[in-house]
Formats: sequence, C-alpha cells, structure tokens
Amino acid sequence: MSIRPIEYRDGAIRMIDQRLLPTQEVWIRYRDYQSVAEAIRSMVVRGAPAIGVAAAFGVAFGARDIAAAGFGEFYAELEKVCATLAATRPTAVNLFWALDRMRTRARQLAGSPLDDIRTELLNEALAVAAEDEAINRAMGRHGAVLIPDGARILTHCNAGALATGGYGTALGVIRAAVESGKSVSVLADETRPFLQGARLTAWELHKDGIPVTLICDNMAGALMRQGEIDGVIVGADRIAANGDVANKIGTYSVAVLAREHGLPFYVAAPLSTIDRNIADGDQIPIEERDAIEVTHCGATRLAPEGIRVRNPAFDVTPARLVTAIITERGVVRGDYVAGLAQLFREHR
Amino acid sequence: MSIRPIEYRDGAIRMIDQRLLPTQEVWIRYRDYQSVAEAIRSMVVRGAPAIGVAAAFGVAFGARDIAAAGFGEFYAELEKVCATLAATRPTAVNLFWALDRMRTRARQLAGSPLDDIRTELLNEALAVAAEDEAINRAMGRHGAVLIPDGARILTHCNAGALATGGYGTALGVIRAAVESGKSVSVLADETRPFLQGARLTAWELHKDGIPVTLICDNMAGALMRQGEIDGVIVGADRIAANGDVANKIGTYSVAVLAREHGLPFYVAAPLSTIDRNIADGDQIPIEERDAIEVTHCGATRLAPEGIRVRNPAFDVTPARLVTAIITERGVVRGDYVAGLAQLFREHR
Repeated sequence: MSIRPIEYRDGAIRMIDQRLLPTQEVWIRYRDYQSVAEAIRSMVVRGAPAIGVAAAFGVAFGARDIAAAGFGEFYAELEKVCATLAATRPTAVNLFWALDRMRTRARQLAGSPLDDIRTELLNEALAVAAEDEAINRAMGRHGAVLIPDGARILTHCNAGALATGGYGTALGVIRAAVESGKSVSVLADETRPFLQGARLTAWELHKDGIPVTLICDNMAGALMRQGEIDGVIVGADRIAANGDVANKIGTYSVAVLAREHGLPFYVAAPLSTIDRNIADGDQIPIEERDAIEVTHCGATRLAPEGIRVRNPAFDVTPARLVTAIITERGVVRGDYVAGLAQLFREHR
Repeated sequence: MSIRPIEYRDGAIRMIDQRLLPTQEVWIRYRDYQSVAEAIRSMVVRGAPAIGVAAAFGVAFGARDIAAAGFGEFYAELEKVCATLAATRPTAVNLFWALDRMRTRARQLAGSPLDDIRTELLNEALAVAAEDEAINRAMGRHGAVLIPDGARILTHCNAGALATGGYGTALGVIRAAVESGKSVSVLADETRPFLQGARLTAWELHKDGIPVTLICDNMAGALMRQGEIDGVIVGADRIAANGDVANKIGTYSVAVLAREHGLPFYVAAPLSTIDRNIADGDQIPIEERDAIEVTHCGATRLAPEGIRVRNPAFDVTPARLVTAIITERGVVRGDYVAGLAQLFREHR
C-alpha cells in the first residue's frame, strides 16, 4: 500500500515532513488551523490534492476552536480561518475548492447547534481525505489502459501518494497500470528547485518496488530524442475550463518536448483541480517563491551573492499540447471546453 | 577584464578550482601532466576550449619531464602522455585537437635537440592559450552584431571566460555586444547537475557588471512563452561536419524550445571545436558521469538510496535547430556542410 501523507487521529493530523524526505521520515502533529496554514506555506505538505485535504482539516480545527454565541458570529470567524488558509499558496485550486466545500457545508448546517456543526465539519474533512484516495483509484482505472505494457513513462514533480490523500494522480495511473499486470518503468525528473522528483517521486516509487530512474530536468529532451521515453504523465495544480494546465514549473517544457517527439502527454487530475471559473490558463495566478530555493541547497550556497533570481513555482501548458486529461470520471480528449463541462454535467 | 582560468608561470600552470566557485576562489598549481589530467577529469577545469589549453600545457610538462636518449624514444613517451590526457573526458573535441597540435609540433621538430623540442612545445602551449583568447575576441566581433540592443539572452552552462583561455565563446559574444554599447541582459540556466550556470556564468557576468538573472533549467520554456527571452546563445563541446552540436546536457531542450517560440538559437565556438572527421552528431561520444553528481549536492543526499540514475553530460542538437554558428572566421548559416567546410578552405 502506498503512503498516506496526512493522517487524522484524536483531534489532530500528523503529516510527514516532505521537506526532509528522502533522508528523514519525520511526522509532525498539527492541532490548529494556524499551524496547518504554515505547513502548507512552508511545503511540509504539498501537491494540489494533499493541500486540499490539509486545508479541510485546518477548517475543521478552526471551527472546533471558535468560541461563538451563534451561527452568525461562528461563520464570520470561520471565514477568517478560511482566509488564513487561502493566503498560503495561490496556484493549486484544490485549496480553494476544499475551503469552499467546508464553507458550503457550514452554511448548510446553519441553525444546527454549533457543536453539531463542528462535528460535521470534521466529518467533512475526513470525507475529503477518504474521497481523495478513492478518486485517485478511479483515475488510475481510467488511465491505466493508456499505459502500454513495457512503457517507459516520464513524470515531472511528484503527483504521487505524497501529493494526495493517498495513491496519487499521475503516479496513481502508473500504480494502477502495474497492478493490472503491466511492466512499467518511470523516469523521474528531479524537478528543480524543490526536487520533488528526486526526493519524493523516486522515494515513493522505489518503496513500492516500481522501477524508477532519476534524471535532471534538462535530460528529458535528449532521452526522448534517443527513443528512451514512451510517454509523459503529470498531475496538475489547476486546469482552466479550456483545458490549459497549470502544473509544477518545467511541465510546459516537457509538453513541448513530448509534442516534438510525437509522444503522448497525459495529465491526471481530479475534478477538484478543474477551475471552471477561469476561461484559460493565462488567468491562473502563478506563485513566485523565494530566491533562496534556487540559490541554495540546504545551507550550501550555489550561486554568487547579489544576482537576480526568478523562481516561478508553476507554468501553464496550453491545452493543444495535452493528449488527454484523466479524471475520476473518465478521460477527456480533443475539445476540452465541451469535454470538461460534460464531466460536471453528467454528475450534477 | 574577464578572468583567465589558466595562467602559466615558472614551469607550472595555476588554475582556479571551478568546483569551488562561487563561494571560494582557490587557485591550484599543476607542474606535471598526470595532475593536469586529473584536474580535467575531476572538472577543476572544464569548458571545451579551456580543456584544450590545459591539455596543451599537460603535454608540454610531460615533454619536459621525459628522459629519453633520442627522438624515437621521446616521441613514444610523448604518445603515452597524450594517451593519459586523452582518456580524461571523451566529448569535447578541443582536447583531442590540442593533443594533435602538440604531437604535430613535436614531429615537425624531429631531429632537433630534445631540449629545443621541449622549449618549443612549451611555446606551442603558450600559443594555444594566447590564441584562444584572441579567437574569442574575433568571435565576439562577428557575433555581437546578431545581439539586438536591449536583448534578453538565455545561455545554458558556462561558455564564458572560465570555459576558455579568456573572454569566452557564447559569453564572449555577449561581452562584445556590451562593449559595442548595447544594453544586454543574460538569463543563466543553472545547468544541473554541475550547476555551471549558477556557479560560474552568474559569477563571471556579475563580476563584469553584466546584468544576469539565474533560473532553473526547467524555467526557460515558461519564460519564453511569456515573451521574456529574445534569443539563445550557447557554446559547444564538439560540432560535427553537418553542423550538429554536442554541448552541455539540456542544450537540445533549449534549442527545441527556442524553435517553438520563434527565437534565434546561436552557437559560438572556435574552429577547434569543429570535428570534420565526424559526419553527424549521432557519432559524437557522449560522456556519462557518476550518479553522485545527480543524487548529491555536496555532502547532502538529495535522492533515496538504491535508485537508478542517468547522468549524460552532453546532448546533441541537430543542425536544423541551429540558427547560426559563430566562429572566429565568421558566421555560418543554412547549409552547414558547405559553410563549415568553406571556413577551413579559406585559410588553408
């Protein structure tokens, strides 16, 4: 069984500190929304679906700790909790999706005793977590058929169990292909600057016995040219209504290279990653993170002092470069505007 | 004046240890060919033209230290010196070019007193070093006209003063454009795994007051898409007769991205980098270096133990993606087979 990076127990969640992997496996307990927000901001937990799960628990903990006389006061305070959690990272829409879901649940319960609302919000967070793993397994079933036996699949960043409630999105598809009896090997882009590929993807696949080869991000093109890669699968942080995909910085380059070499480029993401309020990818806010992530490796300075640094954490891959989007409700290709809208209509 | 990474004095060269930049500026003295060979292998000195200069001095030091009764014995020993230096790194052809030049000079002097030959071989090494900087300045003059005023130029790896006898190839063109009064800013790919961009290009440009912004390799595509890059210039480790270019791993991906965005992709390299014995890039031997360069940053382990790693140090960019090759004898475009052959014919 693949790892679950967030576990609830006794009024707290414990999360594996993803900044310390693979050399240290340290679990940290979080009992209040402020510390959950800080864990998201500082990337103890990362990956769009996992951020959503953590944020849902953050809201539940915040709700539990609100001292209020009535629903109006309670809900006003809950909005502040949500605002704190919303301010942590701007790009992954699952964060805002989870906050909306928790707020909606609270409003549905307006009029109930506050303690019942508090209990129900915790149950909602537990549901978000449990559903996420189930969603990933469904995504895996839909996506596994796209992965040929013997395929050598490139992935970028970590869209694995560690990025989700469990099992993974892109790596969930890989896991499902392996579970269906196929032989699949993975090439993992190390994914500078945070090295989610080297540290997290390599770690969780190796732990599960799935063959993984680590490469630097700049090697993928050359290996494609040499015929050593059969396809690409990545996760997403936000997908616009037209199918444009915001994902970890470097994803766009991989998509251009895949197209150049005639390779399929798949995106695996739950419906909670699709932002139907945004028409195209150019409207997705892209987080720019601290220069120190680029200039330093741990305490070691890599670059001279005083130089300018760019550190966008995400980029946008236009839909035209995406072969298919794999969701828990099936695979969408071609006309993403219609196809993605259809996914939501089918299950209203 | 830009730095010269190799300086001759009193029977030895001192070289700046490029593994320690930018945090430490340590110069090491080398008095014999074995230690020069080790410095090339371990990347104290790197960059195709600089490797050629270092190797020439290695041959001169080897020649000085050969105890031989006559030319036959001397030359047989000199071949062993060359073989040791040749076995250090396989891709950069300037290494083999420099060894051939030194061997040829020795054979020209057959019959002269051995001490005269030893003196002449040292003079030849000094000439290789001095010519390299002059060549780079000529390349700069030819290339500078291609760089528009205000241009934001991406470079990959370090093809600067540190990679040559001085001034640089790709960065020599940038320097010449700046010296001609143009405003030019440079985006430097950090260039994993050895980080020549972060450590060396950023350092030498910053030292010279040329604006430089450091990015991770996987950011170049997104910045091109956003219109923040106007063109690309890189060096080369070996250019085949058809214009295919072997250069630092990641160069090929940058070339594909430049083409995708309609940006010029220039290669700046001296004639000593052109290997007319090799018809196309697929025949260029590509060095695969130790996995530890990818799995570790200094003493810090980045990736889990036991996983497979690929670490090709170079890749091949097909000539069709190269807008122009800038040499000391002018700029070649279009039909590289004819154009490169013409460069050699003109100056026989």
